[in-house]
Amino acid sequence: MELNNDTYRMIRLVRRPHGLPERADFAVTEEPVPEPGPGQVLIRNTWMSIDPLMRVRMDERTGVGHVPPFRLGQPLDGSAVGRVVASRSARFAPGDVVLNHGAWQEMLLCDAGEGGWFDPMRVEVPDGLDERHYLGVLGVSGLTAYVGLRHIGAVAPGETVYVSAAGGAVGGVAAQLAVAWGHQVVASAGSADKVRRALEEYGVHAAFNHRDGEVSALLAAAAPGGIDVYYDNVGGDHLEAALDCLRPGGRVVLCGQVSSVGSATGPRGPRNLMQAIFKGVRLEGFMVRHHARHWPAYLQEARDLMARGRLTLEETTYDGLDAAPDAIVAMLSGRTAGKVTVRL
Amino acid sequence: MELNNDTYRMIRLVRRPHGLPERADFAVTEEPVPEPGPGQVLIRNTWMSIDPLMRVRMDERTGVGHVPPFRLGQPLDGSAVGRVVASRSARFAPGDVVLNHGAWQEMLLCDAGEGGWFDPMRVEVPDGLDERHYLGVLGVSGLTAYVGLRHIGAVAPGETVYVSAAGGAVGGVAAQLAVAWGHQVVASAGSADKVRRALEEYGVHAAFNHRDGEVSALLAAAAPGGIDVYYDNVGGDHLEAALDCLRPGGRVVLCGQVSSVGSATGPRGPRNLMQAIFKGVRLEGFMVRHHARHWPAYLQEARDLMARGRLTLEETTYDGLDAAPDAIVAMLSGRTAGKVTVRL
Repeated sequence: MELNNDTYRMIRLVRRPHGLPERADFAVTEEPVPEPGPGQVLIRNTWMSIDPLMRVRMDERTGVGHVPPFRLGQPLDGSAVGRVVASRSARFAPGDVVLNHGAWQEMLLCDAGEGGWFDPMRVEVPDGLDERHYLGVLGVSGLTAYVGLRHIGAVAPGETVYVSAAGGAVGGVAAQLAVAWGHQVVASAGSADKVRRALEEYGVHAAFNHRDGEVSALLAAAAPGGIDVYYDNVGGDHLEAALDCLRPGGRVVLCGQVSSVGSATGPRGPRNLMQAIFKGVRLEGFMVRHHARHWPAYLQEARDLMARGRLTLEETTYDGLDAAPDAIVAMLSGRTAGKVTVRL
Repeated sequence: MELNNDTYRMIRLVRRPHGLPERADFAVTEEPVPEPGPGQVLIRNTWMSIDPLMRVRMDERTGVGHVPPFRLGQPLDGSAVGRVVASRSARFAPGDVVLNHGAWQEMLLCDAGEGGWFDPMRVEVPDGLDERHYLGVLGVSGLTAYVGLRHIGAVAPGETVYVSAAGGAVGGVAAQLAVAWGHQVVASAGSADKVRRALEEYGVHAAFNHRDGEVSALLAAAAPGGIDVYYDNVGGDHLEAALDCLRPGGRVVLCGQVSSVGSATGPRGPRNLMQAIFKGVRLEGFMVRHHARHWPAYLQEARDLMARGRLTLEETTYDGLDAAPDAIVAMLSGRTAGKVTVRL
């Protein structure tokens, strides 16, 4: 955090990547530190999140009108956590730790807002927690897992849950929540290490490395009785395998498609949607920002599970704003584990 | 209907087709007329349905365990209507008109059953109706349209509905129900004639011929404000177009995938499921036989709409059991209109 008093740095998108981002897609610029106007706060960010949606937003067309793409020449954004350094709003005081939307930027000047999704949100950091946890297990990743499993998948007692990308931030929390809620849980991940961690540390009942063969065969072997809910972070062959494996009345939580994010060949659609017809399966997508009302319930449950040692999350951290492009490439390549963050 | 007193004819599946069925995939056999045992009825069928699911069931793997494939060497089956000729059950008397599961068979011996989906069901044929209507607008096709739109799509007042294959049996009823319920309705079909009929006779507000260009562009032009519910009978490019066009919170009723049924290249999955994530879209499949409890409500509504001239359905009829293979090929090739039936 080499800030002088007058300037800070941000990363701008200067070229839209094809497939994996490259260094030249980004530019680091130095900006003068602004003064907050009335109703504004100035935040010095300490940690930023790296998540798959950031890559999605680097494409021009995807999500137009609903998930705005990053604009060329402009700073990127996303979840960050930091401390208020100056405030001209009664809602925040200097020193407050705030979750905010200023990832890829060492400092953020923004309106204090009124508690909306993109407004800063004050968080408590009790002993044993670090503020960066509000980017992962206690942050948007955790809330995404919770909302998807409970409210979109509507998982019911006695049901079997399959979670893909269980070595990632959302999948890791989803797998642990499903275990904590008493479900039979099957997990998949992209390395033997992640599979071992899911089994030994998250407590899932069966797990497989999706690189060991055909996902459909691996899932059928791991869940011989079928599954009721599939928490989909991957899409492609994982979604096809789940559609084959789902029991009648099953649900698919459409959360992410990391198999196609940054893929040069583009996404592959599931060719067996007839299975959803035969079995009365529901597939439902969601963006967590439309479900922010569940924050309090999730934070209470998550802190309680953490205190009892039932919820943890591996982390991969990088140092310094300059490392952010490397961090997202590493995540998209499956070389990171758990929540990926960058210390600013 | 050239039955002598001793024998009747049925069609058996003797080879599984690739793509469109061929004559040699079927064999017509002559069977001795059986005697009903205790609790059984003997039905002489007068009309049989031709529907896309029949082609699906000619494949070996599809739907295993949920929608059983036809067995080689055995008679095919499906919806038929006929008259009871002999009964050893108090539930039916000779002369009763019954919907039954004995398509592809001039006569059917079966248990009287207890009102289950595959059991015979007595129907009334008031003036102005023909018993074959119970295979189309008043039959499984109509119930499928009704259940899909009302209970799966949960279409709400003021919403815009898009129906594909509106020239077909299910799509034709779905389009008319949506119009009758006051929705803005967009329809697509595979010929100029079907498009004209949807506009002039079904009363839809916009319609296009999907052979006139890219479905996504055609749909965007027909529904510039977007759609809320897509009733999907086609899959493939139609489903992709709808996912692009759906408004936030939209629903897709997964009913059929005629674009892939009988296609030698196999089904194509929608490559833009990310749109379902961005927009919180739900896709839900169903088999109408699990929703039989809606029969009474549908029949009442449908008869009422027919009486007021708000519900009709084009029909394509064929003559004689021998024509059934040609009929299904014609339907899969888009050469039929409305409900396809064969007079036995």
